[in-house]
Amino acid sequence: MKLTDVELRRIRLPLVAPFRTSFGTERSRDALLVRVLTADAEGWGECVAMIDPLYSSEYVDACADVLRRFLVPALAEVPQLNGATVEPALRKFRGHRMAKAALEMAVLDAELRQRGVPLSQELGAVHTSVPCGVSVGIMGSIGELLDTVGGYLEAGYVRIKLKIEPGWDFAPVAAVRERFGDDVLLQVDANTAYTLADSHHLAGLDPFNLLLIEQPLDEEDVLGHVELAKRISTPICLDESITSARAATDAITLGACQIVNIKPGRVGGYLEARRIHDVCVAHGVPVWCGGMLETGIGRAANLALAALPGFTLPGDTSASSRYYHTDITEPFVIENGHLSVPTGPGIGVEPIPDALEEVTTSKEWLSW
Amino acid sequence: MKLTDVELRRIRLPLVAPFRTSFGTERSRDALLVRVLTADAEGWGECVAMIDPLYSSEYVDACADVLRRFLVPALAEVPQLNGATVEPALRKFRGHRMAKAALEMAVLDAELRQRGVPLSQELGAVHTSVPCGVSVGIMGSIGELLDTVGGYLEAGYVRIKLKIEPGWDFAPVAAVRERFGDDVLLQVDANTAYTLADSHHLAGLDPFNLLLIEQPLDEEDVLGHVELAKRISTPICLDESITSARAATDAITLGACQIVNIKPGRVGGYLEARRIHDVCVAHGVPVWCGGMLETGIGRAANLALAALPGFTLPGDTSASSRYYHTDITEPFVIENGHLSVPTGPGIGVEPIPDALEEVTTSKEWLSW
Amino acid sequence: MKLTDVELRRIRLPLVAPFRTSFGTERSRDALLVRVLTADAEGWGECVAMIDPLYSSEYVDACADVLRRFLVPALAEVPQLNGATVEPALRKFRGHRMAKAALEMAVLDAELRQRGVPLSQELGAVHTSVPCGVSVGIMGSIGELLDTVGGYLEAGYVRIKLKIEPGWDFAPVAAVRERFGDDVLLQVDANTAYTLADSHHLAGLDPFNLLLIEQPLDEEDVLGHVELAKRISTPICLDESITSARAATDAITLGACQIVNIKPGRVGGYLEARRIHDVCVAHGVPVWCGGMLETGIGRAANLALAALPGFTLPGDTSASSRYYHTDITEPFVIENGHLSVPTGPGIGVEPIPDALEEVTTSKEWLSW
Amino acid sequence: MKLTDVELRRIRLPLVAPFRTSFGTERSRDALLVRVLTADAEGWGECVAMIDPLYSSEYVDACADVLRRFLVPALAEVPQLNGATVEPALRKFRGHRMAKAALEMAVLDAELRQRGVPLSQELGAVHTSVPCGVSVGIMGSIGELLDTVGGYLEAGYVRIKLKIEPGWDFAPVAAVRERFGDDVLLQVDANTAYTLADSHHLAGLDPFNLLLIEQPLDEEDVLGHVELAKRISTPICLDESITSARAATDAITLGACQIVNIKPGRVGGYLEARRIHDVCVAHGVPVWCGGMLETGIGRAANLALAALPGFTLPGDTSASSRYYHTDITEPFVIENGHLSVPTGPGIGVEPIPDALEEVTTSKEWLSW
Repeated sequence: MKLTDVELRRIRLPLVAPFRTSFGTERSRDALLVRVLTADAEGWGECVAMIDPLYSSEYVDACADVLRRFLVPALAEVPQLNGATVEPALRKFRGHRMAKAALEMAVLDAELRQRGVPLSQELGAVHTSVPCGVSVGIMGSIGELLDTVGGYLEAGYVRIKLKIEPGWDFAPVAAVRERFGDDVLLQVDANTAYTLADSHHLAGLDPFNLLLIEQPLDEEDVLGHVELAKRISTPICLDESITSARAATDAITLGACQIVNIKPGRVGGYLEARRIHDVCVAHGVPVWCGGMLETGIGRAANLALAALPGFTLPGDTSASSRYYHTDITEPFVIENGHLSVPTGPGIGVEPIPDALEEVTTSKEWLSW
Repeated sequence: MKLTDVELRRIRLPLVAPFRTSFGTERSRDALLVRVLTADAEGWGECVAMIDPLYSSEYVDACADVLRRFLVPALAEVPQLNGATVEPALRKFRGHRMAKAALEMAVLDAELRQRGVPLSQELGAVHTSVPCGVSVGIMGSIGELLDTVGGYLEAGYVRIKLKIEPGWDFAPVAAVRERFGDDVLLQVDANTAYTLADSHHLAGLDPFNLLLIEQPLDEEDVLGHVELAKRISTPICLDESITSARAATDAITLGACQIVNIKPGRVGGYLEARRIHDVCVAHGVPVWCGGMLETGIGRAANLALAALPGFTLPGDTSASSRYYHTDITEPFVIENGHLSVPTGPGIGVEPIPDALEEVTTSKEWLSW
Repeated sequence: MKLTDVELRRIRLPLVAPFRTSFGTERSRDALLVRVLTADAEGWGECVAMIDPLYSSEYVDACADVLRRFLVPALAEVPQLNGATVEPALRKFRGHRMAKAALEMAVLDAELRQRGVPLSQELGAVHTSVPCGVSVGIMGSIGELLDTVGGYLEAGYVRIKLKIEPGWDFAPVAAVRERFGDDVLLQVDANTAYTLADSHHLAGLDPFNLLLIEQPLDEEDVLGHVELAKRISTPICLDESITSARAATDAITLGACQIVNIKPGRVGGYLEARRIHDVCVAHGVPVWCGGMLETGIGRAANLALAALPGFTLPGDTSASSRYYHTDITEPFVIENGHLSVPTGPGIGVEPIPDALEEVTTSKEWLSW
Repeated sequence: MKLTDVELRRIRLPLVAPFRTSFGTERSRDALLVRVLTADAEGWGECVAMIDPLYSSEYVDACADVLRRFLVPALAEVPQLNGATVEPALRKFRGHRMAKAALEMAVLDAELRQRGVPLSQELGAVHTSVPCGVSVGIMGSIGELLDTVGGYLEAGYVRIKLKIEPGWDFAPVAAVRERFGDDVLLQVDANTAYTLADSHHLAGLDPFNLLLIEQPLDEEDVLGHVELAKRISTPICLDESITSARAATDAITLGACQIVNIKPGRVGGYLEARRIHDVCVAHGVPVWCGGMLETGIGRAANLALAALPGFTLPGDTSASSRYYHTDITEPFVIENGHLSVPTGPGIGVEPIPDALEEVTTSKEWLSW
């Protein structure tokens, strides 16, 4: 397999409702899609980078730039291309994991389609459907929050995650626990909004019996998490800090986390995501699959990953309708709190041409 | 002080000789200069990013892009701008430390020029000149290496650093020791070219009485360095891994290094560089100032930093002629193995207009 | 800048009310002021030493003696004097940090006045006002204590610190919590009055949700604090034990404290205080600024320091009226729980000649 | 026993030769003697403080001042005074251990004389004579050094200690080893002249088979010694850092030293010195008795201490003629490499009135 053409396509999808985290508020999703062509196959990848460098140093325009200048040209020179050869070919370029992941995903999709193998099978999945959790943004009021959470619970979501930040932490957690009881699977996500100086404050969440607190401190503050873990009893889950299988190994060895959120885009792709899964299972650390406001393309691939045996906690793999009125693929629909893992070759879904064109804001072809 | 205009200027300076490290070979220096204007002052900054993302994920075009899209606009909104307010204003943007450092340097230079204070004094320097070490690239032959090292020693350099990589490590070190004796201050720089699996191999350098081995393993492999430190006796110095005062603190606490190379551009600026200096002194860890093929602009500022009391090892602050036939400022000249710390306000030097224009490849003004 | 004259001036200021700690009771403040003259500038320093060697081995007369015999003469020989060169010039003299700090403060003030730079800016301040806490001495009765605390809360103080000692610990804490509720920011200061044998007793403070317990054990008992930290959940803050950036680093590394009280006089001056700040920030350890019954001179400088970004807890930087009916400078007045950081050059305040003369008990000039 | 009068007497004794350490050069010994009177007894103490605060923060004038202002008045109020009650009575005063030690020594001497008990017996001595080592200052040349060491060996000294500093370390050690062979018991004393940054350099002493290296790093840098101990094989002995039994315990527990130098004057007196001995024996750490240019008064008491069972290494308890042509007591003479432990009550020696008067520079009586 050898690359002949790569398309970098920018799209903009309006969100069903604004999504507010400690980083800011998203109203639409500006995403970069990567489409690769070889002589015999086509594959699709989705880049998880956001429009600005707040969650990560990567942002959409920067991903497009590094793909165009360095990553795609380097891959174009690989004679025997397949999913597994992407990372070695791009290793010399430091960082840029979201850009690399999008490209690897597209190549892997092309390879698997050509071979007729579903991504879930390739990764070693053991489930045909996965339980759905949902991520609830920071709201304007407790009342609005309770209405939203109530709606999700009614829709069948089996686990609620509340985004928190200083000033919006105890009150929403206490309100949800009071209204919906202690049996709701509940966790919180701080997106690095606290510092170790807040440890006494965060210990105030201990009595609420949360599944976990996600990334309370800065992504580079691994030793801070080690110290925090000694001071609070809520299990700590890392997200932003886990950028590779080595980073996961180190964080676990040091005692910085008890749970890991795996986002393939953040770690350089689905193959590295599987390695993180393997490392965590070997260390007895449960994992779950995070979300980055994916379209159906990325959502399909995440479901394949979330079907691996170590994913013992419900992820943020919500139904398409959680984020979008109209997706660029057939929508994923929640049934009995679960989503079905796609069964077709590759990621198992394709963009619907008209739907895709409608949200496309720019296209660029790189060819040889 | 308030920003009115920012110039992003690209220059290309031919190197006196190709410079080869484990990352590749540089033949010219494509750099980005940042010039800020306020109502009353002008300041210059130099971005240390290289042309491609090999030493770091940052590269020149990416730095220009993030400055243009995010960093400069954010700073333009700060009403009471000075050097110390740059970092807080840009903190929300993840990463991009080289771009931030260039911008902070320019603002700090403008502030200090306005106040009439030299950068060295602002940082707390205690020396008026600093000893010069020199970094020697990977050569085509041992003979060529010995000629080069001999030339540097004759020129008065007080410390030699050899770039190494697998296949070019024992032989050059042994040859230099044999030819020039055991009294030459000698160290090596691996630029992440080894893995922990090479620890037995690297222990082979122990008998050569090296000052240090710099960044033997991947920049993210902090625990690998902890383990390596137990297996070799040559002191380990970290470069790429030290991206902040916190990273320095953590590396030292974990036992990953005994010495730290401080590069202001890599850590987000001169103020964070000073914080790293302070942290290292408090931990009893010696520091020295690395180099990134700086023009006279960056070289001047590095000399100010290298004059702080904790810089007890000679740095890579070489004479201008080490890299460039013609610099964009008055050249820094080695005298008795030392370079003088600039005494004028701010960084103490300015580009020579004609020299600057001659090497300029593009200019861009951002104004309000 | 070169020293021409140094004045050692002793003053006695009556306190508004006796101040009792575990060390004893103060009724007036006998302090030593240091005034330096150069050809072009004048600067003021205040020595934090007390009248007797109970809080520290240093006491006012001893500070005057070591200044007169050793420190001032050594500084008089420095040709290029400025704030940063004081510590290196005095380093050979062991200890005597309070005396050194007073002298460095005066030199730094002179330098900054000459350069027209406020101390806050020189140190890297990011706030223009700082929240005020207040330190409440040991009282004769709980009733008296509650009246006093109530008065401070009414005055707008945002954090209460109770001095404690064996026999005056649970009762006052419980009474304040009961009367004023759980939302009051409350902490205690033991001034080394306990031993590790009291750890079970001190764990009794855990339920009161204190911000911290300050210096429970002897200042030299760092390992005792490490052990105590494992036995109680109230965060431990060190004061007397933290005499330098290295001492802070070691205490944090060993796990002896989670919070640090920075008193510039105790650590040899404002530049070392900033280094401690930087070290603590790098370790994720919050700091706050303690007080030593300063007059307006020392209070002004402390406010500059407390405006640095790592001072995330309210300090003991109270209004002048907390201690003195008439201060020797314009008084600092609390507004909305905050004091304004001085904006003039140097420490930003000067003694009022008449007010100063009135409380002066002796003067001595050292000249060259 | 109750104090009636205390004499503070200053003396100046010329040294037989200048004594140079890393702190400076001594040509005469300016010392403070403390003489206590009770209704029935008299006792003598000697203060080890030097004329300037270089070895310690204490210096002769400061010791006299704190004795006069605080220590003696506090002791005068103790109704049942004896050696053991001195420390509790003075504990509230921080630091000032040299001053306290001199006072305690005098009180203990008075008590023991009254009881007719020799100090050696009181402390638990098991030897009647102790082997003599000698401390050799930094010399002008290697030739001079070899002559001096040769003289001491001929005189019968059983162990040589060389004072070292950067620039005077390898050469003198190598020369002594070469001239006098590997069987000479040889150790070095750095008096805090190095930093952890010199660890690689200090490892160069490893091949010389030294008994120990004494206090290589700053007295407050305990963790630095821990780290250094991992990097060099010469056993580390602490001197300045060991200020109390607790400090000894902590240093040993942390791994900062393998050997301890006990100087009673530095640790607050002979009773605390015995406690340090006991702690070290319990930890399996050998101790030896250091010297502070004592006159016969202090020398006598040191010999009593050095006769305890844990003093398994020869100390710096040299003959009187090592330092003084004429001492203020009968001189201590070396015989077969040993000095005899005094057998009379108390310290067992008394000043010779005429000899004492001749070197006295001032006298002061404090009486009740």
